[in-house]
Amino acid sequence: MSLDHAYEDDNVFARIIHGEMPAAKVYEDEAVLCFMDAFPQSEGHVLIVPKDVKAVNLLDTPTQVLHRLIVRTQAVAGAVVDALSPNGVRIVQYNGEAAGQSVFHVHFHVIPVYRDRQEKPHGSSPAPMEELERIAGVIRERL
Amino acid sequence: MSLDHAYEDDNVFARIIHGEMPAAKVYEDEAVLCFMDAFPQSEGHVLIVPKDVKAVNLLDTPTQVLHRLIVRTQAVAGAVVDALSPNGVRIVQYNGEAAGQSVFHVHFHVIPVYRDRQEKPHGSSPAPMEELERIAGVIRERL
Repeated sequence: MSLDHAYEDDNVFARIIHGEMPAAKVYEDEAVLCFMDAFPQSEGHVLIVPKDVKAVNLLDTPTQVLHRLIVRTQAVAGAVVDALSPNGVRIVQYNGEAAGQSVFHVHFHVIPVYRDRQEKPHGSSPAPMEELERIAGVIRERL
Repeated sequence: MSLDHAYEDDNVFARIIHGEMPAAKVYEDEAVLCFMDAFPQSEGHVLIVPKDVKAVNLLDTPTQVLHRLIVRTQAVAGAVVDALSPNGVRIVQYNGEAAGQSVFHVHFHVIPVYRDRQEKPHGSSPAPMEELERIAGVIRERL
């Protein structure tokens, strides 16, 4: 069951994985890529994306890939907490356009929450790449 | 790093796990318990909770427990989609009170999204237990 969306090879995350689009990377290995959300809801908003599977959402993601994604999500969340000292962290994973999914390649969001700062809606406005690269660098140091 | 909250043995989920409080259960094995959120944001809102670890949030959850939780979350999300035909499903996991966490025992939310129905805020109002039991039964049949 995949909520009626076929995998498309030219989706934005596939293009980032294949080096056809830029991203401020936090972590990369042969199976997983973590990079700053280009439309961050808060400072330190990171996406965790599998590289080796064409899965639209959680429902069609193989078990081994799920294992890797959640462990990497945990590691990134810990690094974000260490690097940026938010008051909390939300892990979010959207399945289906109605749920807020905008890129149809399975991914997890790590969204830091700060008590004294207003959070932006999902996908509202892009951040400058140099700002994303700066924050990615701070998070990488704690991974 | 656990966002400054100690594990408390008498938290609501520990009491449910130990049979000291009622819950409309969807799935249970020796390591994981899945039950209807008593304050559902939408019809079919399920919580996935580990039984065998005293972890406050994602950051202090052991790898093996994480693996089990995400695989069970996937299975429940699939059953919810099959049973209730939502337009989408959100997986949410809160860490820290500022992020919306209200029970300090690590857990994942499976929240169905319906295009034609307004979603309620997190923890806003309780549902009658008989209604939760009815929906739990429908989801169990698809697991």
